[in-house]
Amino acid sequence: MIEKYLYSDYCIDFKEGFISKEDSYYLIFNEERELFLTEDKKIPLVNHSFLSNFNVNFILYIGTYKSHDCFVVNVDGGINYYSLHQLYEIDKDIYQIATRGILVNDWYQLNQFCGKCGTKTIIKENSMSLICPKCGTSFHGKIQPAVIVAIHNEDKLLMARHIYNKSVPYALIAGFAEMGESIEETVRREVQEEVGINIKNIQYMGSQPWPFPNSLMFAFKAEYDSGEIEVDDKEIVEAKWFTKEEIVEIDNDISIYSLLVEDFLKS
Amino acid sequence: MIEKYLYSDYCIDFKEGFISKEDSYYLIFNEERELFLTEDKKIPLVNHSFLSNFNVNFILYIGTYKSHDCFVVNVDGGINYYSLHQLYEIDKDIYQIATRGILVNDWYQLNQFCGKCGTKTIIKENSMSLICPKCGTSFHGKIQPAVIVAIHNEDKLLMARHIYNKSVPYALIAGFAEMGESIEETVRREVQEEVGINIKNIQYMGSQPWPFPNSLMFAFKAEYDSGEIEVDDKEIVEAKWFTKEEIVEIDNDISIYSLLVEDFLKS
Repeated sequence: MIEKYLYSDYCIDFKEGFISKEDSYYLIFNEERELFLTEDKKIPLVNHSFLSNFNVNFILYIGTYKSHDCFVVNVDGGINYYSLHQLYEIDKDIYQIATRGILVNDWYQLNQFCGKCGTKTIIKENSMSLICPKCGTSFHGKIQPAVIVAIHNEDKLLMARHIYNKSVPYALIAGFAEMGESIEETVRREVQEEVGINIKNIQYMGSQPWPFPNSLMFAFKAEYDSGEIEVDDKEIVEAKWFTKEEIVEIDNDISIYSLLVEDFLKS
Repeated sequence: MIEKYLYSDYCIDFKEGFISKEDSYYLIFNEERELFLTEDKKIPLVNHSFLSNFNVNFILYIGTYKSHDCFVVNVDGGINYYSLHQLYEIDKDIYQIATRGILVNDWYQLNQFCGKCGTKTIIKENSMSLICPKCGTSFHGKIQPAVIVAIHNEDKLLMARHIYNKSVPYALIAGFAEMGESIEETVRREVQEEVGINIKNIQYMGSQPWPFPNSLMFAFKAEYDSGEIEVDDKEIVEAKWFTKEEIVEIDNDISIYSLLVEDFLKS
């Protein structure tokens, strides 16, 4: 996972319809949420006329990056595009700013119409908010809070096999927050629903933006309290206690999972 | 704030079009996000035919409450309706389930049309998700992560006067998470933006659903690191360090603010 502070290179801002005359960073995304990189695998730092090479759907000023103006550009198709997972392997700085960029891209695309009355929305006075001119409802960027939890039982850690995730054999319990919960209630509910056990001493460990597609992930550790493992068979097909020696090493350090597993291995 | 576990009385579920023949709890909300209570200030536990007294816009099954089926009902106007703040004063149990109910009510109202293409949405197979039959985009409940932070400077606490909040003279620094941040980055950015200082040792204290209108509030404490207080004059008009003796007692225990102030007073 990335420890670097997002705002060490990036200054947040938003201006509607702003076009820069200076060389600027262009975060160019296609419909697959992939980012365009130059031949030497950099974010293009170029003049605005560079965009004439693309079929541009929209362009949004999102602030400055490394002291240059920075834009999100949405385009149709093409070559030299990389997924967020590929970007993480190529350059962690690029991954970090691309995470910010793709979420702004998605916010704009997904709020073109008012969800309440269906009217076409408009940008509200240089703020990153789309507003309905008819009913006045405003639409901000969507962030879905989610949790991931390492459950310790003395010298063992609970790992589960998820039906949807075929890329890793075993993973930690995770899930989305429901409306009206505290995040600790999310942790307890998800554990209860997915593996049927009760936990105690829920302890916050850290957080991480997780743009797959739009989560903010909260990491916790907890202790086993009571109950027998009973998997829900919908999301989880198997769950069991792993010793430190049995923990499967997963090349997965893009995720805050690695922080929780390292903490367990050191415990 | 409420320490009780949401799921001690409530079992989460969702069924489209389900109508109960048994006496059920009906969380009846009007367009002002206020809840109907009976004359003796209870949630009505009644037969479905009771709803013939109301002009019902929609009804949604949201699980069981105190072992009875529980529904969210959206209606037009009327008397004997109470705001969430009033409910908190009347009965904390009612406030807690009403918080869940109003957010489900809002989710349904605000996602009747696809934000991407404007098509009328439909419920997706008994899941609390509205889906676009044309482009396939799905719309879940919206939860806006937000932070509140108590900044300690030796034996003093930073409090600020917010331009929008006229009900309390001084409050803690708070704000919404931006897309692409960790929650700790939200804390540092909001403090930097609003009062211009740098902080260190950011420490998680707890979380709370905050349905005004749809936040999940994350509480932190931090230590002053460097910089002079410089208010942004947009959201914050004044900020200063308060000693324990100067802390203004605010009858505000609905919010996790009280947890942070109590922690400071005990430090």
